[in-house]
Formats: sequence, structure tokens, C-alpha cells
Amino acid sequence: MLDLRPVGYVIGLLVLALGVTMLLPLALEIHDARGAWPPFLEGAIFTMMCGGMMALACANGVHDKLSLQQTFMITTGVWVALPFFGAIPFALGATEARAVDAFFEAMSGLTTTGATVFSGLDDLPRGLLLWRGIMQWLGGVGIIVFAMVFLPELRVGGMQIFRAEGFETMGKILPRATEIARQISVIYVAITAACFFSYLAVGMGWFDALVHAFTTVATGGFSNYDASFAAFSGGAEYIATAFMILSALPFVRYVQILNGSAEPLLQDTQVRSFLLLIAALVVITAAILSTLSAHPWEQAFREALFNITSITSGTGYASVDYMQWGTFLIAMFFFIGLIGGCAGSTTCSIKIFRYQLLFGAVRTELKRIHSPHGVFANKYEGRTVTPDIMNSVMSFFVFFIVTLGIFSVALGITGLDFVTSVSGASAALANIGPGLGEIIGPAGNYAALNDAAKWLLALAMLIGRLELMAVFVLFTAQFWRG
Amino acid sequence: MLDLRPVGYVIGLLVLALGVTMLLPLALEIHDARGAWPPFLEGAIFTMMCGGMMALACANGVHDKLSLQQTFMITTGVWVALPFFGAIPFALGATEARAVDAFFEAMSGLTTTGATVFSGLDDLPRGLLLWRGIMQWLGGVGIIVFAMVFLPELRVGGMQIFRAEGFETMGKILPRATEIARQISVIYVAITAACFFSYLAVGMGWFDALVHAFTTVATGGFSNYDASFAAFSGGAEYIATAFMILSALPFVRYVQILNGSAEPLLQDTQVRSFLLLIAALVVITAAILSTLSAHPWEQAFREALFNITSITSGTGYASVDYMQWGTFLIAMFFFIGLIGGCAGSTTCSIKIFRYQLLFGAVRTELKRIHSPHGVFANKYEGRTVTPDIMNSVMSFFVFFIVTLGIFSVALGITGLDFVTSVSGASAALANIGPGLGEIIGPAGNYAALNDAAKWLLALAMLIGRLELMAVFVLFTAQFWRG
Ligand SMILES: [K+]
Ligand SMILES: [K+]
Repeated sequence: MLDLRPVGYVIGLLVLALGVTMLLPLALEIHDARGAWPPFLEGAIFTMMCGGMMALACANGVHDKLSLQQTFMITTGVWVALPFFGAIPFALGATEARAVDAFFEAMSGLTTTGATVFSGLDDLPRGLLLWRGIMQWLGGVGIIVFAMVFLPELRVGGMQIFRAEGFETMGKILPRATEIARQISVIYVAITAACFFSYLAVGMGWFDALVHAFTTVATGGFSNYDASFAAFSGGAEYIATAFMILSALPFVRYVQILNGSAEPLLQDTQVRSFLLLIAALVVITAAILSTLSAHPWEQAFREALFNITSITSGTGYASVDYMQWGTFLIAMFFFIGLIGGCAGSTTCSIKIFRYQLLFGAVRTELKRIHSPHGVFANKYEGRTVTPDIMNSVMSFFVFFIVTLGIFSVALGITGLDFVTSVSGASAALANIGPGLGEIIGPAGNYAALNDAAKWLLALAMLIGRLELMAVFVLFTAQFWRG
Repeated sequence: MLDLRPVGYVIGLLVLALGVTMLLPLALEIHDARGAWPPFLEGAIFTMMCGGMMALACANGVHDKLSLQQTFMITTGVWVALPFFGAIPFALGATEARAVDAFFEAMSGLTTTGATVFSGLDDLPRGLLLWRGIMQWLGGVGIIVFAMVFLPELRVGGMQIFRAEGFETMGKILPRATEIARQISVIYVAITAACFFSYLAVGMGWFDALVHAFTTVATGGFSNYDASFAAFSGGAEYIATAFMILSALPFVRYVQILNGSAEPLLQDTQVRSFLLLIAALVVITAAILSTLSAHPWEQAFREALFNITSITSGTGYASVDYMQWGTFLIAMFFFIGLIGGCAGSTTCSIKIFRYQLLFGAVRTELKRIHSPHGVFANKYEGRTVTPDIMNSVMSFFVFFIVTLGIFSVALGITGLDFVTSVSGASAALANIGPGLGEIIGPAGNYAALNDAAKWLLALAMLIGRLELMAVFVLFTAQFWRG
């Protein structure tokens, strides 16, 4: 018999914590004295009450152990429950958002997608802007913990390749989660602080620096301005690029640095491939930009560097409307959005390590075509890639592409054009943010879409953020049989 | 040391045979007396001479045995050499095509893609129209033999799952190819004849019936009219649908019927899945069409049936401009183009059996997530799916998607817009024919594209037709070492 109390307990505690963080925008609004504080007070009280009552009601059922079922329900449950409460300030506040818009924005925040339904950001009360930043920041750290603790144990999407040796039982998952969460949080706060001070150093105001530090480190991409990063100077673009890259690397390597060893980071093939990829794409794009337009060399390089890094890391800031860059770059922007960063970072999408494993399999395949009777072992970072792991990675890739197709067609049903459907599905599923075309491209936003499309996109964000399988497994009969 | 003589011998013989078939349009043009016969005479003589000399020059090096290397070089060599000669009538004839256009059209024919660079088809000499039909028809039977004989032995793209038991050596590949080619040819001719007489029965003229029978059975899609199947009555659409479906089924099942057993066809899960898929898509599309437009029920059903079957089987006929059907159906048309028909048919794309194997792997994966220590055997049609086979299928899928991405970006570089790039890459790689949008969509053609794009698309057709790996393997260093 499935005991839902541990699920309710964890979700309740996290809802309670979300309510507590609403006190920050509340404090800011009281300070700003624009009269925009009541929604945050109401939201904080309601959220804390709901979360607290839920946790209390379930507290008597909590052990140290979680079953597989309970673990899966917690992960999906958290990312469904939090956006409902996170949406409250948008519904009650100056944005006066309808339910669908408020939920879309909160889901986009907590999944670090960064797609927005609001325009006129520049004039919003600062509390709402801060709240958007906070949600992305919390979502970012949440997903790292999820990826480092839960996914390897749940053997989802090939993440079991990152499984720590000698940790075979699910029994200790909560204490382990707490310990990892503590270490990661220290690093996450430190990187955010470094990003904040760097933004200050290049001339950003403290509020912009804070919110953009939140959304940079989360590779989230919410900005305080409709113009996104076009609102800032060139220096801020370089800073943002550096921190988007840092945030796309595996956080476990930072834990190791904290424990005194930088070696693993320097030898990580994921990291090397990711950096090489960015470098190659930037060189190509900068060359094309400086050829096609009258851009000075530095501008071409900077625009290429910033926007390529923004899309590859799935952050989704834009410093220019790259829909104007010509067709080559647009098709490229679509496909690099399907790459993503490293495992155990705040990035989403298919991710570098899966491509490495998949290309490893293709190499093996080409070898076997030459030598039908040869035996070829697939290795990754010194570990043997078992057929189980390849099966996981492959299932993830297939499901990602098929899910992308299904969401594209479903968005088409709601009436979106082809480019908006396909790029929107990709931008949501890979948690990038902006899509392609005039409506949802870098110069647009998601406000004009119909409600059905917005619900679908919010669902795609959730599924993509939780690496697909962790959500789909809830829809199998076997799961409920136990 | 690689002996190229057997490669040259087989290619030479096939070029010679292509030259002989040029006598058919020659005879037709002489009969029509429009003065359009000289290109076919010149083409036939030149092609037969080149092919014959090549075969003769290499004849002394021919044994019963082919090495793996030689087999791969033959397959790619055939589909590169034949289009060069097949292009001659387009270059010398009434179309006065430049090299790139003539080669594009011939490659599109021999790969059964059906993308055309010619408009004003209705007024072309009938010899040229017949030649287009013949090339598709030959390409169709060629690919079935290739898929049934070579691919399983070469273990490409998971086709080894269809490997006949007790046939372990490459040694007997040529005699076996000859025997299978004979049986397949009988069936292919019979189905083509049935299609021809059926078209006659619904009122098509004999010439249209012949050429469209050729291009239907090849799931090729060349038509004698710019309007494609919109030139014909409803009856012809039903006939075409029936034969497109027949041609998308595994031809090995027809061989078995010829040998007295219809059972295997009826129990083939590929066939069931393919038919179910078509049925489901047609119902959805017809429902939407009759809701959105004022179409009478029969028209909605017929248009849905014909056009869905045409794209799913990769034929590429159009009876209406489905770009006008609304956005839902357009995104759907893009994604169903990535499905394809059954293995060992004239269809291309990823194909039903690979999706079955991939979804089987996803099911296994979901089971393993529930029961981390369970052991799950993957079965397909009663055969065990080994990790080797899954690795092949997965490599194929990954390479298909990545190749699609690379061609899309490359087409973008040449200046095509996003929709034309992505849908054109897909239409070429999956050998469908028409893409999406106004330029290369069902109401357009490929004439207006730049030359670089045309060469790229011709290359994509070749790579897609030969199931990717069979071409890519030529570009590995190991292949040339031994
Ligand atoms: K993002
Ligand atoms: K075709």
C-alpha cells in the first residue's frame, strides 16, 4: 500500500520554504512604498499555511526510507505544487494575471525556462521582478540536487553512470540529499555572489545585478527588461557569458574543488566537449556576422559569444534579435538548443554527456560494421558503459525527440504556426525560454499565445525539467502496482 | 589490397542496363515524332558504352566472393554513378537542364525521392516523363534488393534483425542477390501491372497510368503534371492509396505468399502497426478537415487518406495543397515524414520496425526503473533483440536526427529560410519529395533553390536512401585500412 505521507511531508516543507522566501519581495515592496506589497503578504501567509499544514499532517508517516514510488512522486509533485503557490503574486499583483498566465510564469521560473508572458517588465513593481528571479534561483539549485541525488538512484536517462560507488540502497536518500544540498548550496550561493559583484563592477545597479545574478546562475534567463540583455553594456555581456558557462558545468566538480581537488574538473570530458563546442560555434557565428554585417570585430565576437552561450546553456537571454541574423544562424539556433550543458548543472535539454555516449555507440557501430565478429567495450570517463546505461540514454533521446514531435503537433492544433509550434515546443521542453519567429522569438514573448498553448508549454517545461522519464513513469500501470 | 574490379564490374553492368532502358523513352519519342528523340539516342549509346567498357575492363577480377569493403563501395557507387548517366536526357533534352538540375532530378528519381526541379511538366515530351518514371521504378526495385540482401549482411541500421538464419558468410552474396532480385522482380512487375490496370479502370490514359504506376509502386511520387494527383479524379486517389500502402509493406512477405504462405504477412507486427498508424492519422485528419472546412464527408476522408498515405509512405504525391489545411496538419506532416514504411519496401525514412524496437527499449527502460534488479529480454517478432541490434538501431536514429540537423543548418547557410531548410532536409533525407512552405511545399517545386542547396539535397537523398551508415562507413579511416 502506497504511503503518501512522506510525499506530502517533503512537498509541504518545500511549499512552506517557498512561502518564507516570499517575505523577501514583501520586504522590498514595503521599502519601495509603491503600495504593491499586499499580494506578497497574502501569498506568503497562504503559502506558508498550506505548506506547514501539509507537512504537519504528514509528519507522523516519515521515516528515513523512501520507496521508489514515493521518490518519483516527490520529484514530480514538487514541480507541480510549487508553481501553483509561486503563481499567487502574479495573479494578485500588478500583473493581474489570469490563472493560466500566472501559472505559466511560475512554472517557467521554477523550471528555469525563462519564457515570459509579461511585457512592460521595465515598469513592474520590483517585488515581482525579484520574485521571478528568486523562483529561477530556487529552481536552479533544486534541479542540481535532484540531478545529483535522485536521478542516478532512479536510473533515469542514463544518469546512473554518475552513480556513486558503494551507495546501493535507496534507504539513505533523504540524509544524503540533505548533505549534498548543503554542499551544493554553499557553492551555489558563492557563485551567485561572485556573479552579483561582477555585475556591480561593470556598472549594473544593485537590484539588476541581484536579479540577473539569480537568473544567470540558474541558467534561467528572466530579465528585468523587455529588451533582456540589450539593456546593458558590453561588459555585462562578458560577465554573463562567464557565469552562464560556469553554471552549465557539473556542480559535483565544484564540490570536489571545495574538498581540495581541481583535477576532476580539468579532466572532465563533458566540460572539455562543452567548451570546445561553444568555442567552435562562436568562431563560426562571429565570422559570419562580421562578414554579413558591418559589425566591428569586437561587436561580432561579443554578440556571437553571448547569444551562442545563452542558447547552448539554455539560459535564453538575448542581447540582439538574432532572428535578424539570417537564415543560417536561425536553423543553427534551433538545433544547438537541443544540445544543452553538462549533467548536474542548472541546464536542461539532452545534454553533452548523452551525446558523448550516443556518439560512442555510433563509433562502436561503425567499428562493428568493419569487423562483424569483434567485441567492443564502450567506456566513458573510465567507466564501462553497460547496455543498461545505453538503453537508458537511448530511451531518453528517442523520447525527447518523440515528445518534441507530439508537443509540436499539439501546439499546432491550438492554432500556432509551424515555426512557433516547433520552436516553442523545443524552447519549453529544453527549458531554453525564447523560441524562433516573430511571436516567441528573442524579440517577442509568450503573451499572445492562446491558453491551451500556454498550458501545453507549461507541461512541456515540467516534463523536460524532470528528464522526461521521471514524469512518464508515473503514467505506467506497473508503477502503481508497485 | 583493395581490388576495385568487382566494384567496377557490378557498377558497369548496372550502368549498361540503365543505358538499355533508355531505349524505351527513345522508342516513345520516335513514335511521338516531336523531334525529341536524339537526347535519348545519344544518352543510351553513351551510357551503354561507358557501362559496357567498365564491366569488360573489370570482368577479369570477378569472383563469387565480395569483401565487406567491396560491398559497401558497390552500394554507394551504384547510387552515385547511375544518376550521372540518368541525368543525360534532362541535360540534352527539352528541359535543357544545367548539370546541377539534371543531376538533382536523376538522383531524386533513382532514390525514389520525387522532388522535382522542373515545372511545366504537362508540356514536356513524353519521353522525359517516361524516363522520370522508369528511374523511380528501377530505384524502387533496386532498394528492395539492397535492403533484403545487403543491409542484413552488412548489419546496418539494425537490419540484421531480418537476417536469414543459417546464412552466415558474405561469400555467397552475389548469387543470393541474383536469386532474390529475380523473385522480387516478378512480384514488383506484378504489382506494377495491377496498379497500371487499376489506373486504366478508373479512367486514366495509358501513358499516365503507366508512369504513375511506376512512381506509385516505387513510392517515388514523380507525376506527369505540375498539379500532381490533383489532375485526376477521386477514383485514382483511392487506387493510388491502395498501391502506396502495398508498396510500403515488406516485400519478403509477398515472396512468402508466392511460395504459398500468406500467414507471415498477416502476422507481421510491422504491417499491423503501419496500417493502424495510417488509420489513426486519417481519422484525425478527416475529422479536422470536415470540421474546419465545408468539405463533404467523402472529400475530407479521401483527401486525408490520400495525402496522409502519400507522406507516411514517403511517396510525396499531393492531391491538394495541404499547406492550406491549417497549422496543426502542417506540423503533423513534418513529423509523420520521419516515420516511413516497413523494412524491405520501397519506402525510406526511419521506418516502423525501428520505432517498434526503440519503443520496446523505452518500455524495458520504464520497467527497469520500477524494478532496478529485474532482467528484461527484448523480443521482436519472436527473435531476441541483442544489444548489438539495439546499438545499430539507436545509432541509426541518432545519426538520422543529427544528419537532419546538419543538413538543415547547411541549407540555411546557402540562404534558405528556416522552414524550407528544415523541411527540405527532411524531405530529401527521408526520400519524401515535397517539403513545407510556399517554395518547396506540395504546391511548389525545387526549381528556385540555389545550386549549393540542390547539391546538398541530392547528397541527402543518397545518404538517406542508403540508410546513412552504409555511406558514412566509407568515411572512416578503419574502413580503408581493412
Ligand atoms: K532558460
Ligand atoms: K518519394
